[in-house]
Amino acid sequence: MRFAADRIRAFSDGVFAIAITLLVLDLHVPERTAHESLAHELGAQWPSYAAYVVSFLVIGIIWINHHQVLDAVRFVDRPVLFTNLALLGVVSAIPFPTRLLAEYLTAGWDGSVAAAVYGATMLAMSIAFSSLWFVVTREEAALLHEGMDAGVARGAARRFGFGLVVYLIAIAVAFVNAPAALVLHGLIAVYYCFDQLKLPAEA
Amino acid sequence: MRFAADRIRAFSDGVFAIAITLLVLDLHVPERTAHESLAHELGAQWPSYAAYVVSFLVIGIIWINHHQVLDAVRFVDRPVLFTNLALLGVVSAIPFPTRLLAEYLTAGWDGSVAAAVYGATMLAMSIAFSSLWFVVTREEAALLHEGMDAGVARGAARRFGFGLVVYLIAIAVAFVNAPAALVLHGLIAVYYCFDQLKLPAEA
Amino acid sequence: MRFAADRIRAFSDGVFAIAITLLVLDLHVPERTAHESLAHELGAQWPSYAAYVVSFLVIGIIWINHHQVLDAVRFVDRPVLFTNLALLGVVSAIPFPTRLLAEYLTAGWDGSVAAAVYGATMLAMSIAFSSLWFVVTREEAALLHEGMDAGVARGAARRFGFGLVVYLIAIAVAFVNAPAALVLHGLIAVYYCFDQLKLPAEA
Amino acid sequence: MRFAADRIRAFSDGVFAIAITLLVLDLHVPERTAHESLAHELGAQWPSYAAYVVSFLVIGIIWINHHQVLDAVRFVDRPVLFTNLALLGVVSAIPFPTRLLAEYLTAGWDGSVAAAVYGATMLAMSIAFSSLWFVVTREEAALLHEGMDAGVARGAARRFGFGLVVYLIAIAVAFVNAPAALVLHGLIAVYYCFDQLKLPAEA
Repeated sequence: MRFAADRIRAFSDGVFAIAITLLVLDLHVPERTAHESLAHELGAQWPSYAAYVVSFLVIGIIWINHHQVLDAVRFVDRPVLFTNLALLGVVSAIPFPTRLLAEYLTAGWDGSVAAAVYGATMLAMSIAFSSLWFVVTREEAALLHEGMDAGVARGAARRFGFGLVVYLIAIAVAFVNAPAALVLHGLIAVYYCFDQLKLPAEA
Repeated sequence: MRFAADRIRAFSDGVFAIAITLLVLDLHVPERTAHESLAHELGAQWPSYAAYVVSFLVIGIIWINHHQVLDAVRFVDRPVLFTNLALLGVVSAIPFPTRLLAEYLTAGWDGSVAAAVYGATMLAMSIAFSSLWFVVTREEAALLHEGMDAGVARGAARRFGFGLVVYLIAIAVAFVNAPAALVLHGLIAVYYCFDQLKLPAEA
Repeated sequence: MRFAADRIRAFSDGVFAIAITLLVLDLHVPERTAHESLAHELGAQWPSYAAYVVSFLVIGIIWINHHQVLDAVRFVDRPVLFTNLALLGVVSAIPFPTRLLAEYLTAGWDGSVAAAVYGATMLAMSIAFSSLWFVVTREEAALLHEGMDAGVARGAARRFGFGLVVYLIAIAVAFVNAPAALVLHGLIAVYYCFDQLKLPAEA
Repeated sequence: MRFAADRIRAFSDGVFAIAITLLVLDLHVPERTAHESLAHELGAQWPSYAAYVVSFLVIGIIWINHHQVLDAVRFVDRPVLFTNLALLGVVSAIPFPTRLLAEYLTAGWDGSVAAAVYGATMLAMSIAFSSLWFVVTREEAALLHEGMDAGVARGAARRFGFGLVVYLIAIAVAFVNAPAALVLHGLIAVYYCFDQLKLPAEA
């Protein structure tokens, strides 16, 4: 059974928009009873701002890529719905490791654990995204728009291997230096801004 | 008076997307003043992760089924709007029993009470969903797409009885063992991934 | 300058869906350090559940009525956008007086103040909704669908006077007995379930 | 590569709707253990209400202007997607400086710092919005609807200089008097209600 693809778009857009906007709830207003000046207290929160910016960029870029995958699709079927649900599950969880990293970034070994949890979430996201792409381009399901060759489309997926490797490296870096791992996640996000998914229709 | 069905979709999708994304707010970052290591503290939070995953799956599956019901519908009338509102009321409340269960899962009798509240919410959801189906397939209202036989569609509803029974069992299990009740809810959700609503158009 | 009406629908639906779903954040999980059993603690929270149900019903019904107003409209212009923004401002504020009422319902005079604030919010909502209707049916703006007579449509607005009076009464009742005022708000909501806005196209 | 503009609308509408609705989470219910009456406690929270109203108005007006920009656009390309993402990043962050200002408005120098952070956020929003307009009207990208002259459209952007200057003034005022800065932000918002973006199609 195949469904038209528009309602999966609305629901996914909603989850992306909410997850990206909920990030702001983790920027905390310093207590008025703090001994230091507000300017000092705000400055001391830099890990929160750094984690906010990186996670915002990450969710924004996943949204743009997700946008492209669903634009290639004319129909969705049950396996697509469930794989998409798994991806949304990871995306909607991102505010939690973001919060965790913001709180523990400079806390030695605990900071490494927090950065590793963050990296593991990104790895799970990468796997879910790759899975969505494979499910969408199954030749026998014929979900793509006419004139799009599923075989060529699958070929575009070779780049997903890059995501897996790079997030595994980020997890390893977490155990060496947590702030360096956060910087690496920022760089990966910026990289993905420029190297986007190429779909066959664009060739 | 009948309305075109598209705006009820947008509103419902919004409520589903928000309810499913708000679940993440109940994953708490351990206090930095905790005596144990972060890894240990995170491990001790397993009831939160378990409740998160089950509730995410439950809301995701209700969304997919809801999707199918509204796809069968060409028009909605006032009874559909209000029954749908009741269903959304239960869905948007799900983060509360989820939080409750995450907090009390291992707390003996209080855990049983929490699991029973969780089960009762699922029962209410099941009843609201069945009601929506009955309201949508009222023959005299003629809300379905042409060529869909409301009588056959109602027949598909026999499976709703299963939902009622199984959630009543989950409530009973809650009083024996709260974690077992959560596992049962997870199994029911996985079951519903495979046994979906069959609409007449698919026959 | 007139705009097509569809994007105001998407934005409004989003605000309604979020406001109605945020209500759940005010259902608090009792502290595990509480002396009483969980069942007792949950029972003691009945004002939260009562306020939740009434506010959910209120926002749900405003959404349905708002739905009808925008269905009557082919174009929106700047005055409609701003009046709608004022209405959304009140709707998105509803979780605050709901929280307030849930916390103070049984607190004597403070409960009356909380119930009066709740009533004042409903009054503001009623005024904003009436204003939206008047702005939408301005004859010179020609925003309605063809064949809809703006004059007849404005006539339908006589019922808005009822809303103003009844919410003023609810504010007065708040100062006598706060729980009675909440019950009255529930009754008004149920009343509006049955007595909906009649648009000329339905005549 | 160009995309149809409708899904960027849905995602942006979602972020605007959520950011504007999350503002309500910063209206706090006074503790029941407070020594003063509820009426007194609520009155003492006036900075929260003032900040809420101003930020609500600001986000609402950005949404209306954003609406107009995207209405002028037939296609979006990658630079538009990323500039829009930057704008949404600022919009979704607005609840944080709002909270900050509400908490510190009357706290002397800390209040000035809070008001300056608020002003800086508005400045960033203004820059992001101007950038979006410049990116959308790049002549070589041909994103506008047919019959819209990109050159004329760019001319409309001269007014953006006004936004930059006025927000810089608001930051300066913050260091003199924080409440005066908030009033100024309110006045700027009201001004933008009347002086909207003029698009060539309306000329």
